[in-house]
Amino acid sequence: MTSSKLYLEDLVPGQLFESGSHTLTATEIKDFAGRYDPQFFHLDDEAAKASLFGGLAASGWNVASVTMRLMVESSPIAGGLIGAGAEIAWPRPTRPGDTLRVVTEVVEVTPSRSRPERGMVLVRCKTLNQLDEIVQTMASRMVVPRRAVPETDK
Amino acid sequence: MTSSKLYLEDLVPGQLFESGSHTLTATEIKDFAGRYDPQFFHLDDEAAKASLFGGLAASGWNVASVTMRLMVESSPIAGGLIGAGAEIAWPRPTRPGDTLRVVTEVVEVTPSRSRPERGMVLVRCKTLNQLDEIVQTMASRMVVPRRAVPETDK
Repeated sequence: MTSSKLYLEDLVPGQLFESGSHTLTATEIKDFAGRYDPQFFHLDDEAAKASLFGGLAASGWNVASVTMRLMVESSPIAGGLIGAGAEIAWPRPTRPGDTLRVVTEVVEVTPSRSRPERGMVLVRCKTLNQLDEIVQTMASRMVVPRRAVPETDK
Repeated sequence: MTSSKLYLEDLVPGQLFESGSHTLTATEIKDFAGRYDPQFFHLDDEAAKASLFGGLAASGWNVASVTMRLMVESSPIAGGLIGAGAEIAWPRPTRPGDTLRVVTEVVEVTPSRSRPERGMVLVRCKTLNQLDEIVQTMASRMVVPRRAVPETDK
């Protein structure tokens, strides 16, 4: 427990967190697709031109996974980032060479009634490319520990 | 375009698709976490015991990615699986050695008004472990091509 970590009591709606950035190369796009989403528009530059994407595009799950890494690297949340669920959308394709970064906003902070040592936090994350275009939006519910459990609840 | 592929016209609410299975090893869990979700409860068996998970658990994005692979491998959808967005939840952890499979149900089929050559399909997917416990639920909107464009729309 370092003092720089944020607990449930430290989070308020409107709070913003900004990540570093990560450039998705064609190699990483194809490597991820080979493991987890082996479809031609994620694997083959030439064939992808005839697809709905009009060219090679990253798997949405690749974008989600890179987003997670950027959030983990920049997150000051105590206990880590533990998601219970998420609502996710990919409004535009991510292309080879795109540099992604994530802006996360705290939307709702709800202490648990049954578990005094923790609560739920709703965040909204935008994943942006180098042109500040949104390539992914995500609303995510996370479990966050409380700094101190009230004596009466122990 | 092989005759075994399904187009928008071939899909009806209630239709079920079942995937093959995949066993998530500790090695794959740690490898994925090292790349995309480097948190101790996904990386270190011993340290993970003290976490909310009570032991090593796969990243939710690892479970989502394995789910995608199982769907791609078993999907008969023409044009591939192209998701516009998804609502996802992880009701219980996935552990090293868990064998996952996916059951997908067609919920809604909606031809596009502006694009006669395609439509949207809403599916609900359950990812189950070897005890038939649900480790992930997902509702996903996918873009699916129509088999034939009416002459009048051309």
